[in-house]
Amino acid sequence: MNRLQRVLEALAARIDTPAPIILTDVMQGNIDRVQAFAKERGLNVRPHVKTHKCLEIGRRQIKAGAVGITAGNVGEAEVFAAAGFDDIFIAYPIWPSGTKGLRLRKLAVTTRLRVGVDNFSAIDAIAEAMGSDAGRLEVVIEVDCGAGRSGAPPQAAGDLAVAARKRGLVPVGVFTYPGHGSSGPDARKRAAMDQEAALTDAVRSFKAVGITADVVSAGSTPTIEFATSGIITEIRPGEYVFNDLNNTRLGACTEDQIALFVAGTVVSDWVPKQVILDVGTKALSREGNPEIGFGAVAGTQAVLSKLNEYHGFLPLPSGAQFPIGTVLPVVPNHVCPVVVNFEEYIVTDSTGTTLEHWPVDARGFLN
Amino acid sequence: MNRLQRVLEALAARIDTPAPIILTDVMQGNIDRVQAFAKERGLNVRPHVKTHKCLEIGRRQIKAGAVGITAGNVGEAEVFAAAGFDDIFIAYPIWPSGTKGLRLRKLAVTTRLRVGVDNFSAIDAIAEAMGSDAGRLEVVIEVDCGAGRSGAPPQAAGDLAVAARKRGLVPVGVFTYPGHGSSGPDARKRAAMDQEAALTDAVRSFKAVGITADVVSAGSTPTIEFATSGIITEIRPGEYVFNDLNNTRLGACTEDQIALFVAGTVVSDWVPKQVILDVGTKALSREGNPEIGFGAVAGTQAVLSKLNEYHGFLPLPSGAQFPIGTVLPVVPNHVCPVVVNFEEYIVTDSTGTTLEHWPVDARGFLN
Repeated sequence: MNRLQRVLEALAARIDTPAPIILTDVMQGNIDRVQAFAKERGLNVRPHVKTHKCLEIGRRQIKAGAVGITAGNVGEAEVFAAAGFDDIFIAYPIWPSGTKGLRLRKLAVTTRLRVGVDNFSAIDAIAEAMGSDAGRLEVVIEVDCGAGRSGAPPQAAGDLAVAARKRGLVPVGVFTYPGHGSSGPDARKRAAMDQEAALTDAVRSFKAVGITADVVSAGSTPTIEFATSGIITEIRPGEYVFNDLNNTRLGACTEDQIALFVAGTVVSDWVPKQVILDVGTKALSREGNPEIGFGAVAGTQAVLSKLNEYHGFLPLPSGAQFPIGTVLPVVPNHVCPVVVNFEEYIVTDSTGTTLEHWPVDARGFLN
Repeated sequence: MNRLQRVLEALAARIDTPAPIILTDVMQGNIDRVQAFAKERGLNVRPHVKTHKCLEIGRRQIKAGAVGITAGNVGEAEVFAAAGFDDIFIAYPIWPSGTKGLRLRKLAVTTRLRVGVDNFSAIDAIAEAMGSDAGRLEVVIEVDCGAGRSGAPPQAAGDLAVAARKRGLVPVGVFTYPGHGSSGPDARKRAAMDQEAALTDAVRSFKAVGITADVVSAGSTPTIEFATSGIITEIRPGEYVFNDLNNTRLGACTEDQIALFVAGTVVSDWVPKQVILDVGTKALSREGNPEIGFGAVAGTQAVLSKLNEYHGFLPLPSGAQFPIGTVLPVVPNHVCPVVVNFEEYIVTDSTGTTLEHWPVDARGFLN
């Protein structure tokens, strides 16, 4: 029986499934390892809290040496700011529709706030919303490095910085996200090189207009190990705190470095060579595909082949026996969309002797 | 400009995106139509609240004539019971691990509670957990009708009912879920016929052991229209209250009967012929595939081709123009996993003149 199954045995009587379980010793190891790596490379760490959305975990990241946090939207930033986090970067091309402009302005006057922008209309709209407080808002120009998502061409970074300054905002640097580094093990290094190149061009574009890029911010858990301090000043990994099967497949972590799994119970076993777990899309989210499956039972060859909302279909590897009532540790493919399904974490360690409940404080805050 | 876009124009200044928008007139039409259909067929309606997880919507379903509600787990049942819903069927093969047995017992003594069972071990474990209150818990035997998920063979229903009665529980009938009716338009009727056949066999199996099946419970939104009162006594549709693109494709609803959409804002447009919306997997969930996409912009040919957590990739149909800042109505493929991502609904009607906020009361209650 593997480590996670032993933990579940120790907790079984005290937890109802499905439930997300954190091993604090493994999580702390992940936090400390990345922090040490960054220190050695002369990089700041600004963890992305979208992965955990949990104040306690954010505090541990700061305590370990993080310079601040990264958020994915205004709601996440508000939750962490209200809890005393005072250096927050919303790494997203914010459009201040609805009440978002007012919320941004309120945040900017109470905490050190940076937001991403990648276009001129957003700069105007945000400046409009900030009014006389425009000078309180630092903007970081997002450039694209090959993910083909958001982000301006690196060569446009300078002009956007000038536009932001003209409107009274404070351009402090550039950021990008090497999303194409998740497409395969060999893609990580290439994406990291694309990232370095794009940020280098963006910094040059800043120089050309006479603005200094103090912040040169890079992703991401899969590309961390290739980040150098040549041009990059900070990294914004999120998933590293928990890790998951996708990162294991990419070679970005080992299975022993996975700090979160979802406890599920076998509830039905009528179909030959298959059992049903109480872990479906509303617990795991639909992350995966028929080829890699939708989550694996730790320490076994068993992989969920299909998910309904409250049902996980688990074909049994030959020889495997999971009687009804068995509680199994399911390791997600992608951890970020799992966490937001739950109100709280079950927090223990590799011995299963401790048991705490931590809220997923920013869950449901999406805008 | 279509109806949904007009609604968004009317609300734009008052909502932040992403946000789930309900059109109450369309929703009420869905509730009343299914209720009228069931009345005509002599069927009871026991709506599955997993789709909306909202007390106010549940109350409207009861007011329209529903006999009670269906829940997918103990947590949902607890939330609705605490709000006064007094006839609840947990249509799931419950295993009372952790504190779930105690929670079930507590629920059963305070409200009329039915739970699904499909195996003998669960019957023993649940009876154990109920102790002297076993007689307060009605059990409904789940049988499989071809979905290959949970549910005993119909012929085993009688023996399970006997076992339940021996343990002091109250077997009241049988239920099944024709999940294979969602695999395509032609699959709906076939699945409904499989459902009818399986329930007929299950009722016969009850008769053979001298137990009457008062409850003969069937799914589901895609198969409603094929349900007859020949053997079936109640239907448990969930999605019908909102509807979605999957049900439109199956022919189970029209686009005008879709009562929920997700408002998203165009935040970036650097990639030619593509814009990025602030609607990703954490708002829509990853429901769909590259072929059908991951959600469509109502009234247009635009379909989301890819989702990241906070980003939706929207290729632009020729001629379409969505400037940055445009708020668009995104219709989900599958509505159930969308709702649980949000704390509250934005509630309006087809004129966009009203604006209320309804909590997703049972969101996050997964066990």
